[in-house]
Amino acid sequence: MTTATDPKSADLETRASAFFRELQEKIVSGLQDLDGGRFREDVWDRPGGGGGRSRVLADGALFEKAGVNFSEVFGSLQPHMAQSLPGEGPTFHATGVSLVLHPRSPRVPTVHANVRFIQRGKTAWFGGGTDLTPYYVVPEDATAFHRALKGICDRHEQSLFPRFKRWCDRYFFLPHRNEPRGVGGIFFDYLGAGAEATAGEPSPPPATKWEEDSERVFGFVRDLGLGMMDAYAAIATRRRADPWGDNEREWQLLRRGRYAEFNLIYDRGTLFGLKTDGRTESILMSLPPEVRWRYGAAPLPGSPEALSLASICSQRDWADDPG
Amino acid sequence: MTTATDPKSADLETRASAFFRELQEKIVSGLQDLDGGRFREDVWDRPGGGGGRSRVLADGALFEKAGVNFSEVFGSLQPHMAQSLPGEGPTFHATGVSLVLHPRSPRVPTVHANVRFIQRGKTAWFGGGTDLTPYYVVPEDATAFHRALKGICDRHEQSLFPRFKRWCDRYFFLPHRNEPRGVGGIFFDYLGAGAEATAGEPSPPPATKWEEDSERVFGFVRDLGLGMMDAYAAIATRRRADPWGDNEREWQLLRRGRYAEFNLIYDRGTLFGLKTDGRTESILMSLPPEVRWRYGAAPLPGSPEALSLASICSQRDWADDPG
Repeated sequence: MTTATDPKSADLETRASAFFRELQEKIVSGLQDLDGGRFREDVWDRPGGGGGRSRVLADGALFEKAGVNFSEVFGSLQPHMAQSLPGEGPTFHATGVSLVLHPRSPRVPTVHANVRFIQRGKTAWFGGGTDLTPYYVVPEDATAFHRALKGICDRHEQSLFPRFKRWCDRYFFLPHRNEPRGVGGIFFDYLGAGAEATAGEPSPPPATKWEEDSERVFGFVRDLGLGMMDAYAAIATRRRADPWGDNEREWQLLRRGRYAEFNLIYDRGTLFGLKTDGRTESILMSLPPEVRWRYGAAPLPGSPEALSLASICSQRDWADDPG
Repeated sequence: MTTATDPKSADLETRASAFFRELQEKIVSGLQDLDGGRFREDVWDRPGGGGGRSRVLADGALFEKAGVNFSEVFGSLQPHMAQSLPGEGPTFHATGVSLVLHPRSPRVPTVHANVRFIQRGKTAWFGGGTDLTPYYVVPEDATAFHRALKGICDRHEQSLFPRFKRWCDRYFFLPHRNEPRGVGGIFFDYLGAGAEATAGEPSPPPATKWEEDSERVFGFVRDLGLGMMDAYAAIATRRRADPWGDNEREWQLLRRGRYAEFNLIYDRGTLFGLKTDGRTESILMSLPPEVRWRYGAAPLPGSPEALSLASICSQRDWADDPG
């Protein structure tokens, strides 16, 4: 692999990539324990440079579809990407782990998580986050999820969690539905890249001193990567045996429509992948296995579905809830 | 309704809108005869100006979901739309009929059709087209569909059909899948607006003298609107009783995933609607009622599904087929 970068970034790039590769192993191993099934693996090359390793489990005991992707891609930027990506010069390097888990049971939330390191010229940054999309909101679970993330953030810097929580609320939002995607979590981008990198961002939170030290940021990203699935595993374990029927399945399939809308219209990772000639099947692994769109579908007032949606739309500070 | 335009355009706008309103009636009436079921109707206002009438039939004998939308919307352009829409000035006016029909049987193709008139300042243009998306390609049907469109085009100007056919092949294409959406049809935009209007278009066909006369273009659009459903109705009638089972349904649901991808990632009408604060349920009425995404799904070599896909990818000149 040859990319023209300064030695310090090149070193971070190598270490980040090695960490992400190992992280995928750990996460997949944990998810196999949770589900009982096995992930299949596809190792692939990207024609323009780099490649990845996609791991997918379909029709498991817990997961209807679970995808955990590692990739390390690099090469020339197409003109339209060169315009919108921070940094300078014609080439980029991107590595990370990305996962989306779609459980069969509507009682178990869908979850997304991602950690990544992107580099262009002398500009390099970490991004990522994780957010929870319940079909039926259980406040106790939303609070546990947020508190676990707050715990990881607080070990590094007190300002991170409130900032990344709000960033998540803004990012995982469907303007055309006027709805958040789920109960949120954390989201961050451009950490370590400097304020100018966020120029294309609609309303990024102000950068802090903390993130100027990319080693500190990497320490946080490692910690997050290794810990981010724990709260989800506990939630899935608590809820997987809860009963559900056709009504709950229907609601899940309709809400999954929102998930597909978000990923295909707005999601930065999805569009980045598709616009940098990424491997389509690995990028769109995040799409739900089955989805319904019904014209004018809306939950009955006062129903569990309506209450769940209202709870999602509240975007409350779950970590502060009495729980 | 008050928009500041010159009298000639204002007149065309009024007549186009009246025609589209009536066209929706005629199409819905024809589709009700075909299906046997009834469309429900929602009349809606757009907060920024204008409104529409959405008609939807769900779970019919032939159609799993059929939506026929009329709209006439106007008002101020958001900054991002002001940049990308041809014409000049801060306001726009758009009216048209748009439909997508998703039959239950995988033996009956999905079809999309649209005719529209858009105006911004002194620039006004017609756009539209119709394209056929079979799950199992029947060459005879694809040929009949293309010949019917060629017949309508040829009555107006010999150059239209070959030009609009190629435009359709380019437009209804998923670069990330390297697949056309279906067997095509015709697509056109900016007719009557002059060459400068197509500046944002990746590779528009060269404009012709014919389209400088907006009355002639309107004549063609009227003819197309009134005739464009005939070939489809004949195809649906021929194929609706053909047998199918789980295997064919699975293929249909996977191919519908491509339809959803196209509409959410690329479709100009969908994105125009969402970005001009259109009525979301009416815009996304085009999405299939049920969809599946399976990681790495591909038809078995030599299977009817593989042959259909190959036939779609050939983008051949169906109208010239011995048929």
